[in-house]
Amino acid sequence: MAQNIYDDPAFFQAYSRLPRSKGGLDAAPEWPSLRALLPALNGLRVLDLGCGYGWFCRWALASGATEVTGVDLSARMLDRARDMTPEPGITYVQADLESFGLRDASVDLVYSSLAFHYVEDLQGLFRRAAAWLTPGASFVFSVEHPIYTAPRAPGWAIVDGREVWPLDRYLQEGVRTTNWLADGVVKQHRTIGTYVRLLREAGFTLLAIDEWGPGETQIQHNPDWARERDRPMFLLIAARRDA
Amino acid sequence: MAQNIYDDPAFFQAYSRLPRSKGGLDAAPEWPSLRALLPALNGLRVLDLGCGYGWFCRWALASGATEVTGVDLSARMLDRARDMTPEPGITYVQADLESFGLRDASVDLVYSSLAFHYVEDLQGLFRRAAAWLTPGASFVFSVEHPIYTAPRAPGWAIVDGREVWPLDRYLQEGVRTTNWLADGVVKQHRTIGTYVRLLREAGFTLLAIDEWGPGETQIQHNPDWARERDRPMFLLIAARRDA
Repeated sequence: MAQNIYDDPAFFQAYSRLPRSKGGLDAAPEWPSLRALLPALNGLRVLDLGCGYGWFCRWALASGATEVTGVDLSARMLDRARDMTPEPGITYVQADLESFGLRDASVDLVYSSLAFHYVEDLQGLFRRAAAWLTPGASFVFSVEHPIYTAPRAPGWAIVDGREVWPLDRYLQEGVRTTNWLADGVVKQHRTIGTYVRLLREAGFTLLAIDEWGPGETQIQHNPDWARERDRPMFLLIAARRDA
Repeated sequence: MAQNIYDDPAFFQAYSRLPRSKGGLDAAPEWPSLRALLPALNGLRVLDLGCGYGWFCRWALASGATEVTGVDLSARMLDRARDMTPEPGITYVQADLESFGLRDASVDLVYSSLAFHYVEDLQGLFRRAAAWLTPGASFVFSVEHPIYTAPRAPGWAIVDGREVWPLDRYLQEGVRTTNWLADGVVKQHRTIGTYVRLLREAGFTLLAIDEWGPGETQIQHNPDWARERDRPMFLLIAARRDA
């Protein structure tokens, strides 16, 4: 079972104050890029793994999805989701992604934002996701970029008077424990090569990899985002379930 | 036209002394991983882009390829190739990869080792490669990993008493000028996302990405390779031309 850090009161309170928690999808700078990887949602049955407050579930429904299921490990998170996005048409399910099950070929899009780097058995999850999806259907997700999760000491450092990202341990996959919002947050570090291999082994064809960075307009509005171009923070992936 | 640094006498002399120049494929630590991405060569017509001394051409022929063509920009390199691997069955061609042309559907495998990060118009080259290949045929290549090419100052640095790779400018694609073997070697920095996009746009399906690092046995034999696990140096890619 994955660590349930989102039910830690201190973590949850800090998380609630993040722009992306308060402001929804539009407050997440990578959202336009992730949205660009999605198929047209009209008529689709959609599954959101790690749905958080349900912002994406609401957006999917408004974009024409016929059924939307949001899954999250955190009961606190789902309470908030049911408060904020109570639309009929959305079903919220409290479950661990490590073991969550669903009927075969019952979903037309599996989506996930920034949840899979908490999952230990991603091979198992990808295989189950392939079974839930209809042939040719879409699998679109984001994770923290491995360049971001790899280092022993993730944070900017000064070398020769310049700010750099002190990369190490990139090829050493496994647990990373960081102090983001709360102490002892446990993540799984995986290389891009591993994400691609797990997808293929599960029966997916890779369609796109987007190593997100802020665009010119975003930097004009938020000049302090410029350094995000020095190392990618998010990895966005689109795949298609093989027929 | 790409810079022809391999015809620079000082560069060529230094290059000639590298283990991988003297020792052939087995002296390149990533070769076993790259070989693992190749299809069975029996009966295939093989094209090697940036063939250097011709080590791969010789190996391909010995592995059952029926016709092998090695292309390189450097006349010096090809002179050496014709000396060292003069087997009939191998044709060496002096040409710039930026403009090299070949008959459509005339090749069953396009291979390249550590050459594409010198190519400016990779989109054009990928499209031509797709045309040369028969439907379903393989495209297997290595490049310097973008983590390796990105930094302003590529080289290990000490932060808080530990050796790290000072990453910056990862998302800023374009020219990088370094002093490897000779001053002013010009490379093209591209993200993994861009390699994947260019492949797809050219009509390839991505099969595998290997962000090469030394294995346990390799580190036992070469303990100083251990730090190569802190940041990948090579990116190995296998794709299949769509039918």
